[in-house]
Amino acid sequence: MPGNHQAMWERLNLDLDAHASLLEVLGKFYGDIYLSQQGRLQGMEYLDFVLSEIHGLRVQELQQAKEQGRKVVGTFCVFVPEELVWAADAIQVGLCAGAEAGTAAAEKVLPRNTCALIKSFVGFKLSRLCPFFESCDLVVGETTCDGKKKAYEILADHAPVYVMEIPQMKQACDRQLWQAEVRRFKTAIENLTGRAIDAANLGRAIRLINDRRRVLQRLNRLRAADPTPISGRDVLLINQVSFYDDPARFTQKVGELCDQIEAKISRGEGVADGAVRVMLSGCPMAIPNWKLPYLIESSGAVVVGEESCVGTRNTRDLTDDSGQTLDAMLNAIVDRYLRIDCACFTPNRERLDHIVEMARELKVKGVIHYGLSFCTPYAMESFKVEQALSQAGIPMLGIETDYSMEDVEQLKTRVEAFVEMIR
Amino acid sequence: MPGNHQAMWERLNLDLDAHASLLEVLGKFYGDIYLSQQGRLQGMEYLDFVLSEIHGLRVQELQQAKEQGRKVVGTFCVFVPEELVWAADAIQVGLCAGAEAGTAAAEKVLPRNTCALIKSFVGFKLSRLCPFFESCDLVVGETTCDGKKKAYEILADHAPVYVMEIPQMKQACDRQLWQAEVRRFKTAIENLTGRAIDAANLGRAIRLINDRRRVLQRLNRLRAADPTPISGRDVLLINQVSFYDDPARFTQKVGELCDQIEAKISRGEGVADGAVRVMLSGCPMAIPNWKLPYLIESSGAVVVGEESCVGTRNTRDLTDDSGQTLDAMLNAIVDRYLRIDCACFTPNRERLDHIVEMARELKVKGVIHYGLSFCTPYAMESFKVEQALSQAGIPMLGIETDYSMEDVEQLKTRVEAFVEMIR
Repeated sequence: MPGNHQAMWERLNLDLDAHASLLEVLGKFYGDIYLSQQGRLQGMEYLDFVLSEIHGLRVQELQQAKEQGRKVVGTFCVFVPEELVWAADAIQVGLCAGAEAGTAAAEKVLPRNTCALIKSFVGFKLSRLCPFFESCDLVVGETTCDGKKKAYEILADHAPVYVMEIPQMKQACDRQLWQAEVRRFKTAIENLTGRAIDAANLGRAIRLINDRRRVLQRLNRLRAADPTPISGRDVLLINQVSFYDDPARFTQKVGELCDQIEAKISRGEGVADGAVRVMLSGCPMAIPNWKLPYLIESSGAVVVGEESCVGTRNTRDLTDDSGQTLDAMLNAIVDRYLRIDCACFTPNRERLDHIVEMARELKVKGVIHYGLSFCTPYAMESFKVEQALSQAGIPMLGIETDYSMEDVEQLKTRVEAFVEMIR
Repeated sequence: MPGNHQAMWERLNLDLDAHASLLEVLGKFYGDIYLSQQGRLQGMEYLDFVLSEIHGLRVQELQQAKEQGRKVVGTFCVFVPEELVWAADAIQVGLCAGAEAGTAAAEKVLPRNTCALIKSFVGFKLSRLCPFFESCDLVVGETTCDGKKKAYEILADHAPVYVMEIPQMKQACDRQLWQAEVRRFKTAIENLTGRAIDAANLGRAIRLINDRRRVLQRLNRLRAADPTPISGRDVLLINQVSFYDDPARFTQKVGELCDQIEAKISRGEGVADGAVRVMLSGCPMAIPNWKLPYLIESSGAVVVGEESCVGTRNTRDLTDDSGQTLDAMLNAIVDRYLRIDCACFTPNRERLDHIVEMARELKVKGVIHYGLSFCTPYAMESFKVEQALSQAGIPMLGIETDYSMEDVEQLKTRVEAFVEMIR
């Protein structure tokens, strides 16, 4: 950590010793997985800096914003319409959910058979390890899966929790329910901030977030180049950082990076010469969950796409910005978020089509489906994914794991065998 | 099996050898757990007969009804509004989901980390072991949990599946969604049967199903007597049979049993002298899942209530029968089913209140919370149940298990220790 943020972390009532250990492990892990890469693009320095200050400068910015009366809204899911948060001049951040640090505390209130992501965010809160969580004026959950839906009831004893209901189908009645939920959320944000959301500020927020989506779409398009110009773990990191850095700054910095990538492509340069192109599909990978991409990219393959919430599921669709009235903009938000192809929907044919389409566009040799242990929606849907890929002639390897390092050798063996098979 | 139904089972394309083994095990199990009880009420002969003919006479009735043009609708959940099925002169049956028989087949298409109930019904279908399933013209699923929601997508490759969406909250927009779903289901049943549902036949169906609920309510009230007049496993069986026997016959037979119970109470007689009164709460127990009640009642306790879908959750609420128009009746159905306090809702405070209220009315010394392994909604909610019971001064034991017999000794030790503690 370049900066000294001890006083701030103390004010936020973090468990300072445990937090220091966490940052130490994270720094070491980042060095091994990221800084060890050869010939990285200069634009990645922005990401390295953001990561080196992960619980520092950005949290300091949040504190300064709070002093000026702005509110901080924490989220765990791509369904929360962040345009409404930014429109009311509040700040949205994705909360820490990618490390094991608080598991022991989480298992006192959650079943052991709970996915690592849920244990992680409950554990981070109960163990006072996440300065983002401690900065939140509101924490917004959603009903995307049984585990999160019920965990928020328990989390509500410890934090100001608001839950959005996500429909489970995409019929007319579901759109109506979702429309009511988007409007209820708008009111909640207006009440939290004391600011009315209107066509002017919502229009600005839609453009702000669309710009961030556009730059990530551009990045993903550039990866279709052969050889691919950037490692999968670097792009995963960029997606992860998109959830908590300032959106305008992020868009500018990733835009600069894309310029460098274009130049690199025009020189015919890539990363990982001769590596087998694969795509990841499935559960989200929150910081610092870099285990599987690192294993894959240490096994003769390169990841060229992430069909995931921390990936294309969050960036594929723009919010229509042509509406002039508040109503038209709210409807555009309703429609945009209902297009998300999360496994929480039944049926969810769109996702299968998206996966096959992406695999073809990115010219991958195979797909690695990533499931968090005990994530029922994605585990069950992987059966349909394998069917769809098989019909398209694309091999799939299904991996189920959590945040522990115990299975690393076993996973490496399986990944290497798969890469060898599809080479 | 008293009757000879081989020809019928062959016509239904059952796996005859595997099915014969299943029935043999079931008969043995039933003898050990049920017929071994001392001084049972004469009225239980009806249940013994129904069980002895579990895949025989009732299935034969269904076949005869089908020959006359009636349709058979299979379900897995108390959310499916059966009044609509009976109104259209179709027959609703709860499908087999309480035995391990088809697990090996199920695990080829489902993750191993799937609850036993889901594995069971998928396995019964894939292994051709359930004559009810094979008799169905329509199988109706619902979105109560991630596991079922996604398993129906896989089951739909093998059976005519229709899925109802169950809301996850109880706001105005949820009632609207549920109202749309009830009407969509009405249309589906009308299309299936070719019969219009109108105020006359729906009114009759509401009375038919309310009568069945009333007789089960009466049975549950009688169990409040001290000493309690009937074993918990007998009442569990009655609840289980309520899902698939003819409703009018069931109501009459259980009414006669209740008369006998009243006489028994007036003589001051009970079952299990000196046994500790406990209540079960949690996941449903489908036939022949009698493991836990049997263990409890072999450990110096008697079960006097089941807070479960195969229990009070299915019988607590009547459908208002005062409406005269079809619209009024449909609205009454919408309201009745939305009162169900399933753990699929968030929050679900009603359930906590119901459990404490029931425990007090039944004068229990403790509650045993039953969770099926990998059932996330009930596992997570058990944390809140324990909090609520603790505040009411009522001890709780949380048990998590599946359909295997491997953990019987371990469970018995835990149950005995709990019973000793609360005695």
